[in-house]
Amino acid sequence: MARTAGSDGGKTQAAIRDAAISLIARFGYEAVSMRQLAAEVGVQAAALYRYFPTKEDLLYDLMTAHMQALLASWQEARPSTAEPAPRLAAFVRNHIRFHVERRHSTHVNNMELRSLSRDRLTAILRLRASYEKELRQILRDGAEQGAFTVEDVTLTAMAIIQMVTGVIVWFRPDERLSVAEVTDTYHKMTMRLVGAREN
Amino acid sequence: MARTAGSDGGKTQAAIRDAAISLIARFGYEAVSMRQLAAEVGVQAAALYRYFPTKEDLLYDLMTAHMQALLASWQEARPSTAEPAPRLAAFVRNHIRFHVERRHSTHVNNMELRSLSRDRLTAILRLRASYEKELRQILRDGAEQGAFTVEDVTLTAMAIIQMVTGVIVWFRPDERLSVAEVTDTYHKMTMRLVGAREN
Repeated sequence: MARTAGSDGGKTQAAIRDAAISLIARFGYEAVSMRQLAAEVGVQAAALYRYFPTKEDLLYDLMTAHMQALLASWQEARPSTAEPAPRLAAFVRNHIRFHVERRHSTHVNNMELRSLSRDRLTAILRLRASYEKELRQILRDGAEQGAFTVEDVTLTAMAIIQMVTGVIVWFRPDERLSVAEVTDTYHKMTMRLVGAREN
Repeated sequence: MARTAGSDGGKTQAAIRDAAISLIARFGYEAVSMRQLAAEVGVQAAALYRYFPTKEDLLYDLMTAHMQALLASWQEARPSTAEPAPRLAAFVRNHIRFHVERRHSTHVNNMELRSLSRDRLTAILRLRASYEKELRQILRDGAEQGAFTVEDVTLTAMAIIQMVTGVIVWFRPDERLSVAEVTDTYHKMTMRLVGAREN
């Protein structure tokens, strides 16, 4: 489904990003060439380099956009309450919803960190850390208020993030379960995992 | 650390496998060439093709060996009791131990499925399914005997496997925590996740 670039640079850039995410998710960053990407988008390779001078610039752009969108989605979804349980519930729901809608982008973000230069890797890991910090704060508050049982805040945060991100590995909506049913079950499992008092 | 192949074909084959796992984990399957691999092992490319006629033969060999070793490790680790809780504990412990010791091989197995031909993909997924079936049986027994709270056996099995496999993404022994401490915390979280009666 090659698209022809119009005069609108924003549209072209969006088309490049979409095609890049889908090609990289399928073949891996190292295996995808700028030439192949240009053909997929329906532009000359020169046009591609105008927006993204190097392939790594493109990868970094994709990863940054993904992490910024994730942080923004949580800023919007986070409840105003100080209660740990509804905050954790909101975090799990938002995390699953966000990632199920961005399966390919999530794969790229999880698998291609090795292809970033050191400075850019640091920048992406910093965005990740600031997202994970939100979850750690919820877990810490829950443990301090006696609402949760948490042996180790960092380790529990990683366990929950791995568990819920894993949904996209195997889950396809419209099969046996809907996104809502899956989210509901993950919510219950998470609440038990942290020993939430009100289950 | 290039090695020179001796007269022992088994040793050469093992050296090829080790080098392949480490190169593929680092650069991705598509980006690694047989020529590069031969240079790393210190053999002629022709020698490589004698053992593995195609690059995909090599990838399939690596993935099959990984899954067979995982199944064998569980056959050895599985307790003889019919009690669900100690069986689940043994499953989690063995799973973490196995994967922490095979970090690169696990990455290759999780990330390069897309590079297998359809028949071989099916074969690997069948090995995975037979491993996951073991966990599902434990969860089903636990739910039926009233020892566990499980909303959905398949979904809970995936959640546990994603959660415990995720340990290798971030965990490096000898930092803040030992493998034993991490395993112990994951055991506790898993038991709560399934609402195990005796916690």
